[in-house]
Amino acid sequence: MSIMIKIDTKSNTPIFRQIINRMISLIESKAIKPGMRVPSTRKKADKLSVNRSTVYNAYRELWALGYLESRPGAYTTVRKRINITDRKPKARNSIIKWAERINTGGEKILAAYLKDETLLKKATRSEIINFIPLSPDNRLLPLDSFRKCMNDVLVRQGTALLQYGNPLGYQPLRDYIAQRMQAHSVSISSDEIMITTGAQNAIDLLLKALASPGRGVVVEAPTYSRAIDIMQLSDFKIIEVPMKLNGMDLNALNNILDQQSPDIIYTMPNFHNPTGITTLQDHREKLLHICEKSRIPLIEDGFEEELKYFGKAVLPIKSMDHGGVVIYIGTFSKILFPGLRIGWIAADKKLISALVPVQRASIISGNLLDQAAVHQFCSMGHYDLHLKRMHRTYRNRMQKAMQAMQTYLNHDQVYWTQPTGGYTIWLKLKHLNKNENSVVEKLIDHGVAVLPGSTHFHGEPSGLFLRISIAHVDEYAIEQGIKRLATGLAELYNQQD
Amino acid sequence: MSIMIKIDTKSNTPIFRQIINRMISLIESKAIKPGMRVPSTRKKADKLSVNRSTVYNAYRELWALGYLESRPGAYTTVRKRINITDRKPKARNSIIKWAERINTGGEKILAAYLKDETLLKKATRSEIINFIPLSPDNRLLPLDSFRKCMNDVLVRQGTALLQYGNPLGYQPLRDYIAQRMQAHSVSISSDEIMITTGAQNAIDLLLKALASPGRGVVVEAPTYSRAIDIMQLSDFKIIEVPMKLNGMDLNALNNILDQQSPDIIYTMPNFHNPTGITTLQDHREKLLHICEKSRIPLIEDGFEEELKYFGKAVLPIKSMDHGGVVIYIGTFSKILFPGLRIGWIAADKKLISALVPVQRASIISGNLLDQAAVHQFCSMGHYDLHLKRMHRTYRNRMQKAMQAMQTYLNHDQVYWTQPTGGYTIWLKLKHLNKNENSVVEKLIDHGVAVLPGSTHFHGEPSGLFLRISIAHVDEYAIEQGIKRLATGLAELYNQQD
Repeated sequence: MSIMIKIDTKSNTPIFRQIINRMISLIESKAIKPGMRVPSTRKKADKLSVNRSTVYNAYRELWALGYLESRPGAYTTVRKRINITDRKPKARNSIIKWAERINTGGEKILAAYLKDETLLKKATRSEIINFIPLSPDNRLLPLDSFRKCMNDVLVRQGTALLQYGNPLGYQPLRDYIAQRMQAHSVSISSDEIMITTGAQNAIDLLLKALASPGRGVVVEAPTYSRAIDIMQLSDFKIIEVPMKLNGMDLNALNNILDQQSPDIIYTMPNFHNPTGITTLQDHREKLLHICEKSRIPLIEDGFEEELKYFGKAVLPIKSMDHGGVVIYIGTFSKILFPGLRIGWIAADKKLISALVPVQRASIISGNLLDQAAVHQFCSMGHYDLHLKRMHRTYRNRMQKAMQAMQTYLNHDQVYWTQPTGGYTIWLKLKHLNKNENSVVEKLIDHGVAVLPGSTHFHGEPSGLFLRISIAHVDEYAIEQGIKRLATGLAELYNQQD
Repeated sequence: MSIMIKIDTKSNTPIFRQIINRMISLIESKAIKPGMRVPSTRKKADKLSVNRSTVYNAYRELWALGYLESRPGAYTTVRKRINITDRKPKARNSIIKWAERINTGGEKILAAYLKDETLLKKATRSEIINFIPLSPDNRLLPLDSFRKCMNDVLVRQGTALLQYGNPLGYQPLRDYIAQRMQAHSVSISSDEIMITTGAQNAIDLLLKALASPGRGVVVEAPTYSRAIDIMQLSDFKIIEVPMKLNGMDLNALNNILDQQSPDIIYTMPNFHNPTGITTLQDHREKLLHICEKSRIPLIEDGFEEELKYFGKAVLPIKSMDHGGVVIYIGTFSKILFPGLRIGWIAADKKLISALVPVQRASIISGNLLDQAAVHQFCSMGHYDLHLKRMHRTYRNRMQKAMQAMQTYLNHDQVYWTQPTGGYTIWLKLKHLNKNENSVVEKLIDHGVAVLPGSTHFHGEPSGLFLRISIAHVDEYAIEQGIKRLATGLAELYNQQD
């Protein structure tokens, strides 16, 4: 058999690659057929006037790609492959209808995700003031000092950090977090802490370990959308308790507990997402008491714990937890680099131990390298400095937002919360008979993007709400943005009159 | 009121901290009581002969810690706190019995984990030759070039990489993976790829999206232990199909499919964990055909795809998948740094899109920084070089292991697989009436650690098996280790006679 290959010595493509490409095309076009013998490397090299090793390398590659077959003591032949001509990407006819195959929870969160995406695409256009993102402003992130820390830990202990790690996380960072929580009056030791891949991973682990499908999980309404997502995905029964100005409605909670016995209660007492409300001290005590009495674990999501700008300190519920019913979730993502995905669970040691195999089954272990870099960053004092800067900046931003709302919004039409920390403000649009989507669209038309309130409810929202986050918007833009918001809302209310 | 504080100017503790510590101890011992007024910063500073700002900073910290309370226009007082004296860590009486609260799946994997831990503690003693770890040998990992890549990407695009990322992963790495899979004859584009936090996260996501509790998932028996874990945790029905020398037992699979309709079939066709068996080409084609006919998604776990040392290439099942039923899982963890936690899913674009919100609900997004560093590492050619070195090393190690087993083990007593790649070898101990634990213990006594076979079964193992991994053991130690293994086994068989 003779195989027609023409070598172009002037081409940029290496000769070795030219041979491969040509042979693949000959094989796929069936010009040379499965089972046919290919010339020896010597013969082929002579014929093409190329080095024998060039042909050898080309054959080796073709063999690795599955085009050739060679058996000890036999000729090299073209390998028989199924549908060998179909190798090039083509429009596939899916045998499986994936949309039908996704389970119920998956379907629900997919719908929510697609809706979010449509909005986010619009919100990131350059002319829009974007009140949606809930992560620290890029402009404030201490990249250089972090880079040095990363390099340091790689030099000093890189190999150890880059193996599979302990699912509990990097021990010095566990120690640091324990100390830091002690400064928030939480009596805790480092063996009561598990580092997680962000707070989201923490919620996932806790649901996996503590709840059973079909059983109830109590959440505030509204609450963190991604908490709703992961509960839906696992088919938990989500029980909503209205959020009031001083915290979760405890009468409603007691009524629920009279009738059913949920697996978990989930709360965000500080700068609650989305409302920005801080659960007051006496309310925290009562909530804790209810959980102790009914022996139901309380997840306290302290995602913005350290972002307090005004007023007196309110301590974590975990600081009063002497019966070990509180499972505290913390995270670096709202202050440091969210992309590092570092959060933690602080809870009874017995629970932490039981979560280790759950984490092992979920992601084996977190990323110790990143954890060590963050520890280095914290222990060198960079974190405290950075936090001070964040406080200064966001205290001013929150003040500016409050002033601008006071100036531009109409109290008769709009109610808004007055957060003492964190990033989010919650708006209620009173007596406005509009569809939520059309409100958000109208605001986009006016150059301002906000999150629709319904995102934060599992069931029907109790009104027309919007969430504003000041995280990525500087003071000047905050004022402009609230102005635009006010103009947009005024137009909507006028249309109604 | 006078508060007794003595400042020790010779102490290493800053004065500011001395004031804080002393006041906390006075407050907690109730020497100064809630509601009591604290001296003004001026008075206090005069009395202690320290700078006024020192006292101010100490008060501020005490306020932040919740010990002091100050209202506008009023004196600063000691704050009333619940159980303020209980701040120090103490033995808690748990209100919740966590062991009873963990759900069934959680309980099962906890038991397995504790058993593993006991063994691993013994296995890592310095005198033991450890055939347990299944990750690249530390001594082979290219730390310096990786460190440079990490630094590069941090300098060039750090801030963007450290924000929340696209749950699909870092686009250039998706492109690179698509190209690499094309080199393995898989026709795929980068929008059919999602980067995951290791292969384990990939399995978790697929189970979350595609399976419903109580419904069946088919696995090989034996199979990857962590796959069993995550299935147990979610209460899936695990259906075991025996692993044969050429792959999953297809007759058994067909019998199962005649009676029930599982959500997923999970296979590891290359260097199967734990057996090291490579599913043969015709067997792969038949398995694919079964999945296509029954319209059941096939998860192909290609965790050691690139670790082929001997024999002719066998292409991924995904390379023949024209109906989109194959969901391919890949990972960098068995070749590069496992601690980075980077794996991927390659599947029908519709499925990939549906997995995005599932990932968002599970961990928001993966770590783009690490993904970018790995991409930089690969695109500079370091990966290919490293892979060559790995091949050279492990080809020799596997050969050495095969030789040593041939030399030292007794064929009448022990059967072992002859893998053409990967890290693991599977041993069957024939006619040995011993409890598996006692076998593993005996081998530890002889200075060699292996994994008990039962770890890899969901139900009862079909015999007495051991798994050997050559990943962390050099050639010299492999020979020594197999010798010790042989001596230990000989003793066990002798006891029996």
